[in-house]
Amino acid sequence: MKNIFDLSKNNSKKIYIEGKMFPIKVGMREIMLQTGESVYVYDTTGAYTDPNHEIDTQKGLPKVREAWTKERNKEEFHTQLWYAKHGIITPEMEYVAIRENQNSTHPNPITPEMVREEIASGRAILPSNYKHPEAEPMIIGSKFLVKINANIGNSALGSSINEEVEKALWAIKWGADTVMDLSTGKDIHQTREAILRNTPVPIGTVPMYQALEKVNGKIEDLTWEVYYDTLVEQCEQGVDYFTIHAGILQRFLPCALKRVTGIVSRGGSILAKWMSINKQENFLYTHFEEICELLKKYDIAFSLGDGLRPGSIADANDEAQLGELKVLGELAQIAWKHDVQVIIEGPGHVPMNLIRENMEKQIEYCHEAPFYTLGPLVSDIGAGYDHITSAIGAAMIGWMGTSMLCYVTTKEHLALPNKDDVREGVVTYKLAAHAADIAKGHPGAAERDLQMSKARYEMRWNDQFNLSLDPERARKMHFEMIREGADHCAMCGPHFCAMKITKSI
Amino acid sequence: MKNIFDLSKNNSKKIYIEGKMFPIKVGMREIMLQTGESVYVYDTTGAYTDPNHEIDTQKGLPKVREAWTKERNKEEFHTQLWYAKHGIITPEMEYVAIRENQNSTHPNPITPEMVREEIASGRAILPSNYKHPEAEPMIIGSKFLVKINANIGNSALGSSINEEVEKALWAIKWGADTVMDLSTGKDIHQTREAILRNTPVPIGTVPMYQALEKVNGKIEDLTWEVYYDTLVEQCEQGVDYFTIHAGILQRFLPCALKRVTGIVSRGGSILAKWMSINKQENFLYTHFEEICELLKKYDIAFSLGDGLRPGSIADANDEAQLGELKVLGELAQIAWKHDVQVIIEGPGHVPMNLIRENMEKQIEYCHEAPFYTLGPLVSDIGAGYDHITSAIGAAMIGWMGTSMLCYVTTKEHLALPNKDDVREGVVTYKLAAHAADIAKGHPGAAERDLQMSKARYEMRWNDQFNLSLDPERARKMHFEMIREGADHCAMCGPHFCAMKITKSI
Repeated sequence: MKNIFDLSKNNSKKIYIEGKMFPIKVGMREIMLQTGESVYVYDTTGAYTDPNHEIDTQKGLPKVREAWTKERNKEEFHTQLWYAKHGIITPEMEYVAIRENQNSTHPNPITPEMVREEIASGRAILPSNYKHPEAEPMIIGSKFLVKINANIGNSALGSSINEEVEKALWAIKWGADTVMDLSTGKDIHQTREAILRNTPVPIGTVPMYQALEKVNGKIEDLTWEVYYDTLVEQCEQGVDYFTIHAGILQRFLPCALKRVTGIVSRGGSILAKWMSINKQENFLYTHFEEICELLKKYDIAFSLGDGLRPGSIADANDEAQLGELKVLGELAQIAWKHDVQVIIEGPGHVPMNLIRENMEKQIEYCHEAPFYTLGPLVSDIGAGYDHITSAIGAAMIGWMGTSMLCYVTTKEHLALPNKDDVREGVVTYKLAAHAADIAKGHPGAAERDLQMSKARYEMRWNDQFNLSLDPERARKMHFEMIREGADHCAMCGPHFCAMKITKSI
Repeated sequence: MKNIFDLSKNNSKKIYIEGKMFPIKVGMREIMLQTGESVYVYDTTGAYTDPNHEIDTQKGLPKVREAWTKERNKEEFHTQLWYAKHGIITPEMEYVAIRENQNSTHPNPITPEMVREEIASGRAILPSNYKHPEAEPMIIGSKFLVKINANIGNSALGSSINEEVEKALWAIKWGADTVMDLSTGKDIHQTREAILRNTPVPIGTVPMYQALEKVNGKIEDLTWEVYYDTLVEQCEQGVDYFTIHAGILQRFLPCALKRVTGIVSRGGSILAKWMSINKQENFLYTHFEEICELLKKYDIAFSLGDGLRPGSIADANDEAQLGELKVLGELAQIAWKHDVQVIIEGPGHVPMNLIRENMEKQIEYCHEAPFYTLGPLVSDIGAGYDHITSAIGAAMIGWMGTSMLCYVTTKEHLALPNKDDVREGVVTYKLAAHAADIAKGHPGAAERDLQMSKARYEMRWNDQFNLSLDPERARKMHFEMIREGADHCAMCGPHFCAMKITKSI
């Protein structure tokens, strides 16, 4: 384990930047270049890359946020949204402001006040269940770095608790900003517990999966009570955000059932079936304010699920999808009234020409609540390559304003991802998110590219590897073909190196 | 060899559609579905997938276009552009019209007359050196399917003739529409000969590479005469399009040399160096009309090279790049005057927010000549994943009007691609091109997606594999986790299959 988090292999080290308002220290990765310069990079690995930290997954991670929340909870407990609305900057807010400024020399850095404002307006969230003090503060909103989520979790067909913890840590090693545990198989509670105690990033779940497990997979036996108990259980464990499919209503079903691919959201299909059996409205919708009251006590964020997201490009932006999206916007306003933070989930499969409409409708219907999309995939025929089919749509929608991208792995539509697939999926999505950050002009985002290109032009190979998103892969590919210290790369050979020729002019 | 081209493994077969105007037969792949329906797919594999063809790379492929060109050459030889301008539809034009209509039931199919019009206006090209009669006609233009090119070729550091032929066939198996032989190592002539005699797609080269080899890599010894002789040699062999860097002029060098990554085009850097040594204008520019006269005799197309394409996002859309682009537009008009077909090469590295400007300037400066881009890569830090970094830009620029996308492999910036990298690169680019075809509304493009999604909803697994761009990979991933004939996939397991639940409603 130690070894996968060893930054020194990539001539990097963990550094901490101290807060000016609060006694906080924010971890970053410093990449030291051969020129003597350094590049500072956003770092999702928490204590794992701190050489002073003893890794022990039985003991779990240090509880970095515990002191802050304890202090606050002495009086009355409030959510980050409540503080933001009341003009109060929390340690978490200063933390993310520091964290977002990878390149501290930028003339317009992100400030704690800007973070507060964005949270207060609902345009950003800072997921932070106080029962998950191991998680480092991070922010999700269109004015900030585009974040990525990696899904893990077992299914009835396989995987163990240890494997899932390993996958979670593997995902954060490659840069996942949040992890969703979508387990639907055995030991759901224990798997989640192990993940929560060992991850420095917010954890999301879809509580419906465990609720359904509790009634042995029988949708007809599902009740609000079973679901609510499950929510409480997960709140207490420390889950930071819940996918809740409260927007899929009875009136959307006739349209959804006529689609090319019907309902492809697991949560959505379960609720659709429940509504059709019981001839009643979605209980997550009818009990929505009760859920708000519960989430408020922990500062857990809603991730309002799109149960009717299109599962094929033929179904994109249809009446069912957009109808549900409007309801999600209404629910967001109710959550905000309760000072509960909200993000809105989005598709799915959308051809490139319909992506902008999707984004614009989301902003309009959901009052600028952060958008969190799965891809979208821009074609249906990429089986085996759907990390790419979806990265195309993800980069585009990230540029247009989506705040978090849920990764899709190469095995999408086919099988559960293994560790290699998780790595490939996370790096692919970091790339899509980074491309979006550059395109939207995030302060300092292009600095790493600039340093990479300078290193490339000057044939500083190690700097190139260390600045790339997957140094190990880049290094391996290069050295399969070429000796150390070459003044050209193996693509063109010594006589045809354009950069070498250019420099000789 | 036979085995890699065996369509029956994917429940497909080669079919031929006959011409109405000419005695031609156009090959397509028919995918037979479990429902009894069929999907017809564009097919780049020529005779290799015809069970009646004996594969023999020593003998080469059948010369499908020989009869047509012989007939025509009895009188005077003319280019496709000449015929198009004179209102004459050639067999090649009818061939590509049939070929573009994958889904023959579409209400607005592509017609031979539309093909003629697009060629006549310069908005499309049909590359067709009559000395390469093995190549099947195909069209490159924004009103048609977006095409992809795969680069192969040895370098001083490795590869053999057989390996390169294998790479070319491997590329067309996965769907490459053209192949560029960029060899710069040993046996350049023989490698190209073997590739030409065995490929059913147009072949492009950068003649400068061989010209430089002829003067032992010494740029100071390069002359117009050596270059011209090389052109003649390659014309006679049957190359269908030449990358010619005639737009990089002395006046652009000061700006180019100040860039973050200088000049990253090999041809561009060679000419820049030559100009700086000789204090003379680029000889490809000063001799441009002589080149037109030569290419006209074979109907070889210009691919006007962008010697100043940006090699980093910091250099994108700069004065050097856009200055050269204007010159390429002027040269296109000169070529058209000589009835020579032209495409224009483009970047490179371009952040998403600058892609549209790039496309619009190209259309404006180059009078709608087809655009042929390398990616573009939307970030510089994707080393090891640059097939993806570039596929994002490629899909976007393809949608906006680029006619052909030059693939970038996962090894870009690091090493020469091997066969696995070629496959991954080609399939990734087919996906980007297909996403662009859908977004721009090419007649029938989304039909394959629709059938895929129906197969997905109905759990017709074999149909899904056969309809995907890489059936072998999809099949392998699926069956690593699941038994044959399952009514759910391994992602969600039996109780959590959204589609299964939905259908039970």
